[in-house]
Parts: sequence; C-alpha cells; structure tokens
Amino acid sequence: MDDIEIEFFTDDELHADILIEGLPGIGQVGKLVVEHMIQELKAEQVVGITSIFFPPQVLIEPGGVVRLPDNGIYLWKGPERSIAFLIGDFQSTSNEGHYLLCDAYLDVAEELGVKRVYTLGGYGVGQIIEEPRVLGAANTDNLIDEIREAGGVMTGDEPGGIVGASGLLLGLAAQRGIDGICLMGETPGYVVDPKSAGVVLDVLCRLLNIEIDATRLEEHAAEMERILAKYQEAEKGKEEDSLTYIG
Amino acid sequence: MDDIEIEFFTDDELHADILIEGLPGIGQVGKLVVEHMIQELKAEQVVGITSIFFPPQVLIEPGGVVRLPDNGIYLWKGPERSIAFLIGDFQSTSNEGHYLLCDAYLDVAEELGVKRVYTLGGYGVGQIIEEPRVLGAANTDNLIDEIREAGGVMTGDEPGGIVGASGLLLGLAAQRGIDGICLMGETPGYVVDPKSAGVVLDVLCRLLNIEIDATRLEEHAAEMERILAKYQEAEKGKEEDSLTYIG
Amino acid sequence: MDDIEIEFFTDDELHADILIEGLPGIGQVGKLVVEHMIQELKAEQVVGITSIFFPPQVLIEPGGVVRLPDNGIYLWKGPERSIAFLIGDFQSTSNEGHYLLCDAYLDVAEELGVKRVYTLGGYGVGQIIEEPRVLGAANTDNLIDEIREAGGVMTGDEPGGIVGASGLLLGLAAQRGIDGICLMGETPGYVVDPKSAGVVLDVLCRLLNIEIDATRLEEHAAEMERILAKYQEAEKGKEEDSLTYIG
Amino acid sequence: MDDIEIEFFTDDELHADILIEGLPGIGQVGKLVVEHMIQELKAEQVVGITSIFFPPQVLIEPGGVVRLPDNGIYLWKGPERSIAFLIGDFQSTSNEGHYLLCDAYLDVAEELGVKRVYTLGGYGVGQIIEEPRVLGAANTDNLIDEIREAGGVMTGDEPGGIVGASGLLLGLAAQRGIDGICLMGETPGYVVDPKSAGVVLDVLCRLLNIEIDATRLEEHAAEMERILAKYQEAEKGKEEDSLTYIG
Repeated sequence: MDDIEIEFFTDDELHADILIEGLPGIGQVGKLVVEHMIQELKAEQVVGITSIFFPPQVLIEPGGVVRLPDNGIYLWKGPERSIAFLIGDFQSTSNEGHYLLCDAYLDVAEELGVKRVYTLGGYGVGQIIEEPRVLGAANTDNLIDEIREAGGVMTGDEPGGIVGASGLLLGLAAQRGIDGICLMGETPGYVVDPKSAGVVLDVLCRLLNIEIDATRLEEHAAEMERILAKYQEAEKGKEEDSLTYIG
Repeated sequence: MDDIEIEFFTDDELHADILIEGLPGIGQVGKLVVEHMIQELKAEQVVGITSIFFPPQVLIEPGGVVRLPDNGIYLWKGPERSIAFLIGDFQSTSNEGHYLLCDAYLDVAEELGVKRVYTLGGYGVGQIIEEPRVLGAANTDNLIDEIREAGGVMTGDEPGGIVGASGLLLGLAAQRGIDGICLMGETPGYVVDPKSAGVVLDVLCRLLNIEIDATRLEEHAAEMERILAKYQEAEKGKEEDSLTYIG
Repeated sequence: MDDIEIEFFTDDELHADILIEGLPGIGQVGKLVVEHMIQELKAEQVVGITSIFFPPQVLIEPGGVVRLPDNGIYLWKGPERSIAFLIGDFQSTSNEGHYLLCDAYLDVAEELGVKRVYTLGGYGVGQIIEEPRVLGAANTDNLIDEIREAGGVMTGDEPGGIVGASGLLLGLAAQRGIDGICLMGETPGYVVDPKSAGVVLDVLCRLLNIEIDATRLEEHAAEMERILAKYQEAEKGKEEDSLTYIG
Repeated sequence: MDDIEIEFFTDDELHADILIEGLPGIGQVGKLVVEHMIQELKAEQVVGITSIFFPPQVLIEPGGVVRLPDNGIYLWKGPERSIAFLIGDFQSTSNEGHYLLCDAYLDVAEELGVKRVYTLGGYGVGQIIEEPRVLGAANTDNLIDEIREAGGVMTGDEPGGIVGASGLLLGLAAQRGIDGICLMGETPGYVVDPKSAGVVLDVLCRLLNIEIDATRLEEHAAEMERILAKYQEAEKGKEEDSLTYIG
C-alpha cells in the first residue's frame, strides 16, 4: 500500500472552483460547518483518502460494521460555481504526515481545478464566550479586505501560528499559486461548539455569496447552550453546598 | 534488510480458506485462543515474519537460546477447509508500522487464497466479569446475522474503535474484497484471561462449524480462577486487618 | 513534495566564500547575531528552504498573512569576500531530520563554493552573567589558534557535545573537507540574550576581519537589561515582603 | 547522505574470523571490555560508521575539536585468528534504526568473513554485587556447553529479552548462519562498572583461548571501589547525623 491512498469514486471528469476544509480540530468548529454544508447542499462524496499516517485502528459504525479511518472529498455543483469539501475522521499522527497529507489534498484540489481554498477551525480562548468573533488569516495580502468586509477580524497577533491542516493547506497552497483563507471561530476549546460554527458559517457564506439554511446548526447550538447551562447550574449548586458545609 | 521480511518455510503450494489472527493484545485473549487451536489441530508453521517495526530486542528461550521477535503463520488442512493462523510475539511499535504489517499479512493471506479473516481479541471492561460476552464486529453488513446466530453480541457502541491488528486487518481486508469478522471477549484487561478466551473459542467454533476440545483452555481458566480467588482473599484480609487497626 | 525543498530565487550564478549559521537556539544568540549582520550588511535572500521536518503549521505575520515555516540563505558581496547567511524559523522536529537538513544546507554551501562555515549559538549556564565569554569549537585542529586570537575561549570540557545544526554542520562539513568554527556565547538560557549576541558578534568580526556597527544590538541589549533589572527588583520586593511576613 | 554511512579506511583486503561488540549500554560493561582489548592488543580502526539514527549532535574532544558521533570497527591480526571489534559513541535513537544499524554491522562482518559474533553487555540487578556472575546466551543450541565451560551461567529466565545491539546482532546473525554468543556481566546498573567488565573479559578470554593482561582494568575497578566506598561512608555518615538529630 502507498503511504497515502487516494481513490476516486467515479470516472467522470470532476471540477471544483473552491475547496473548503473542515477536518477535526479545536471545538470541532470546522468539521461542524462543513458537515452542515454537505448536508444542506446535498454534496456527494467523490474521493476517499486513507493513510498510514492516520491512527492504526478501525471505527465501529452503529450496528457493528467497521471501517478504516478515512478522509473524503465531497462535491456540490452550484449554479455559478462548484465547491469541493474536505472532511473526515482524523488528521495525521506524525509531524511529517501532516505535510504529506496536505500536499496530497492539494494534488486532488489542483486536479479538480480549485482556485481558492477555505480552511475552517476553532480558536481556543479557554472560557465561554458570549459573542464569538471570527478570526481571519490569508495566504496573500489581497484577500484581507474581502475577509474584513465579510465580517472576519484580522488580528495577526495570535502567537504560534495555525497548527495542522487549516494552517498547512494555506502555506502549501501559496506555493502552488492557489489563494487561501482561514476562518477561526473563537471557542472555549474544551467542548464541541456549534455556536462558534454558526458564526464561521455566517462569514463564510458572505465570502462565498451563497445562502445556507442555518436552522439545524442553530438548534444544535441551542441544545448545547441548555446542556452547558445545566452543567453550570450544577457546578454552582455544588459551590453553594460546599459553602454551606464550610459555613 | 527489508522493513518487513516474510519467509516461506516450504516450496509447496499452500492454500487456506480462512485466516484467524491472534496477536498479543488485551488479556492475551486472541493469542490464547489461537495458541490453543494450533495445539489442538496440530497446525504447522509455514511462514515467518520479522520486521524493523518490532521491538529492537531478542527473546531468550528457556536454556538461553535467543531468537528475533517474529510473527508466524500456521496452517491446518481440514477435511473441508484449510485454516491459516496468524500469531506471534509483538505488534508494531509505530503507528505507520501497524498499517504496513497488516498489509503484509494480507498479502500472504491473498497468496494463500483466503476468503475470510477472523480477528480475535479482548475487550477491556476494568473489572472481573462472571459471564463474559463475546462482542462482534464485521467489515460488511451481511456477516452480522451469522455472528449473532453463533452467539456474538453486536453492539457498535464501543467508543474509539478497534485498535491494532484486530481492527486494521478488517479495514484493510475490506479494501481487497475479503470478508472480516472480529470477536472480542469481555475481560478485566489487567490479567491474562483464559476464561474470556474460552467463550471466544465457543463462538468461533460455531462460526467455523468445527469442534475443538476446550479441556486445556478450561483447565487454564480454572487455575486462573483459583489464583484470582486467593489474591482477592488476601486483599480482603488486608482490608479487615486495616479495619481492625482503625477500629 | 520532497522531504526538503530548496528553491533558488535567482538564475544568476551565486558565490560565497563563507557560510554563517544562526538558526533558532538557546537564548536566540545565533539568530540575533545573523539577523543583525543581514540588516547591517543589507544581505539579500537567495535561497528558501521548506521541509516536512519543520513543525506542521504556518506562521501568522502581523496583518494576518500566513506563511510556511522556512529557513533561508542570504548573500552579501563584500569587497574581498562574499558571505552567505543561514537563518530561519525552526530546526528539525525529528532526530533524523536534523542530519538530513544539515546535509541539505551543506549541499547548497558547496554549490556556492563555501570554504568555511561559522555556526553561532548560546551556551546555557543557568544564571545571569556579567561578562559572558565566547566559547569556541572547531572541526579541525588548525583553526584553534585563530579562534583564541580573536578572543574565543577553547574549553573542550562542555559535556554532551553541541546539539542541533550548530554542531552537526561542523561535523558534516568535516566530511566534505570544509572548515568549521562554532562560537557559543554564554547566556542564562531562559531569555533572549542580545548581550551574549554582542560578544559573539565581536569575536566573529575579528575572525572575519570585517567591521559591523553594533549600535542596534547594543540598544537591544540595554533595553533587555532594563527589563531584567525591573523584574529582579520586583522579585526582590516580593522576597522582602515575605520576609516581613515571616518576621 | 545515506541513512547509514560506512567508510573503509584502507583499500587492503581485510579479514576477521570473529566480531566482538561493545557498544554503550548498562554499566558500560561491554564498552569497557572492548576498549581494554583494543588497547592491549593494539587493534587498529579500519571502518567508520555514521548515521542519521545517532543523536543529532557532535562530540567535543578535549582541546575543542568536534567530531560526528560514530561507531568504528577495529582489527587485530592474531597468530591464529583475526578479531574485529565494534565499539563507538551511541546506539540508535529509534527502534527501526536499531535493526538497520545492526544489519549494516553484519554486512561489514560478512564482508570480513566473520564466522562468529560475541556481544558484550551488563545485566542490571539494581544493587552492588560482591561477585558478579557472567550470564550467557547464544543464538544456537550447540554453543551453550562452550559458554558453560568458560564460566558463563546459562539462565534463560531473564524476562524481556536482550534489548539493543547486543541482542539484535545475535538474532540477525542467526538469519545469516553466523554463530552468536552474548555475555552479560551482572552490575548495579547505575555506575560505570570495570569490575563487571573484568569478569566478562575473563570468560571471553577463555572462550577465545587468548590471554589479555587485565591489570589496567583491575586498577580501574579498584579505583571505582574506593570511590564507591567513600560514597557509601558519606551516606552512612549522613544517616548517623540524621539519627543524632532525631534522637
């Protein structure tokens, strides 16, 4: 087997103008956005990617059927543009594998004719945030105004850079002359965060000039709020109880 | 030397319909079952596998002769079917090696003509279990009824998937069109568990429609029960002693 | 992509007599010296190096534009000699990568015609030092007098050797018949240390027989002294406070 | 550069009947023996080995000259037999590198015509031992009597096998039809142990049927005894002091 195996599920010639990446990461923000878009747009999987750089295991589906970890590319043909989505189970388990996988993703993107890459993720801030901002980054100067106009915040003072596929895809895309924008929703970092995914989706839709029904994502976010509120109440109760004990 | 070295011990053309894997793992459940079957069926080793992905050491046999870590394939020619067994000293020390070794095992399996793979292991539950169940998984839908009929339990809610060769062999076999079933005996996880091996052997024999004398495995399990009972009594004694001290 | 990618930014034939390395390391001493020299001499980047052995991330520049981690070679044509500088973002994340990257740097050096390599770094001593010395090492006997005459101290009793590019470049250069000198400024090890960089620059300039205006480096060092002095005062205040409490 | 680089220092045809390995390990026992033999027999280095699997650093010699970590093969032409010695700075930093390096060492051994390999090491027992035994292991049955007759103890109940070059060389030699014997001197494990090296040298000389003056090794051992005795006295003093305080 090759270190990275890429399988096309069709012999048809495929085309996409844009690639949107939402691999697993902080708060699963990017993955939630791309999952939502795939569902709403009814995008279909056209490519499967397996690799020795993924964890050495299979995943058990409900019912008991197992499958290899794999990442996939889904395609949606819009009236004006076609969009490819990159989503999946895992990122690389090794430093070197991160580079090699991202390079392989871009090989596919180039084959599809992709001219711009969006990478989506969370930006961990360590606490619950009422109104998460969407932080932006780009792999070339002339994309910055566009991000700002769509509601993204350019900061450039995040220390340490952007780690993993959301970062590397931008850096490696630049080498190929492909534009790249990264959108990161602020998120506590320790919970799955559909609320942060919602604000990232907002900014992304403005950038893409398309409309996506966000109802399901909002419902998911509202449910998450209820769970967190209950949890916080329970924690507060514990504190009061312990105060009583102390008092 | 190659990263993985496969040596055939005979020039005869070899054939097997089924491959049963029992490499080291949780509670050594899979290894105990396959060791038992090899002994009872008098299967003979036909292939030896060494690899740079095994730990960098030799094993000392009683008497002081050393040998490289190696995994082996044993063959049994039954009246109706031939079965190959995969057993050995170690699994891979690296993530990538897990994939490459399992791929190499399947290369041999395909060469032997194997149409179905059974992988055996333990499912750690963290406590002593009176009546361990056998959890099943498969790499294709249409094997599930068969597993259930043989007494396996399909759950599919084990989190995190199946790690190591027992999982990967199923996932990689699917890519080659080879059927795969995984049987996992519930086990505490912190002791070698011939009792769990016994129930896995039961289900496996029903699936294979063969009979294997389980006496030796039962004796081993009874002996293990005695050891654990003594250990628990000793622990209980300690607790009572300490209660006395406290009281 | 190759494991190490080397890009020349010009088709002109390039030449350098000397290579000076200042990759990140203890106290950033080497990097500060080479950054300073590049600025003062207005050296220009001629080569860019990216690699799967660098951390899997991009760096965010002020303003929000990202770029891959990369190391670069800068060139300065002096009246008598040409000097190449090796500087950059990271060293290798793996042991093997250190060897392979240093070998690649020397491939470029040989192509440029380099006859001598200087590697610069810090030597961590774990405490603030009033008058840091410059420790020297060489990859051949006949360079030692030269280092001493320039004010470097030959000790040879540093345990554990010189780790990373500053060491390996010397060892690998010897195999190619290229002279190599390492200069290490004593430094606490836990802060960026422009003062140590200053004394290394001193010795290096004497070895190269060139003059470099050190004003900016001295200003940086003075500023760092003020910061450290404030910090020490604050720490002292805390101690006195705690003494008061105890008293 | 190749992952492992082997350099012959002469164009003469070289021959050795025996290879004796003493790379760094527990108590430096093997290294002390081989260093001693090289000195006493005035063996000369004929091969140098460098590798990306060694630590990424250079070693500083007294005086300040640095060199790459390297392992070497030394040759001694005896009246009846020629012996090659393998000694050096480091073993591999990675699991896979251990296999690949040992395989490379055996390539050289085969080229020299080696028919038997001796590997030497320490066997850590965690405490000071008055009369260390020499534990033996072999890669084939018919060497065991020979080891016993020379004073080695065959145990075969050491758990976990023999890790690193001393083990792997035996296992890999067997695959090539080369005899292999491992001698391990019992040693505390936490100090360099010339006493243990002395007893290993004893058994080895009987196996080789040669005589080596052990004076220097005995002096080294006596000196080490004095250091340890002083240390133990100091420790005892501390205990008595603390008893005084308590009393």
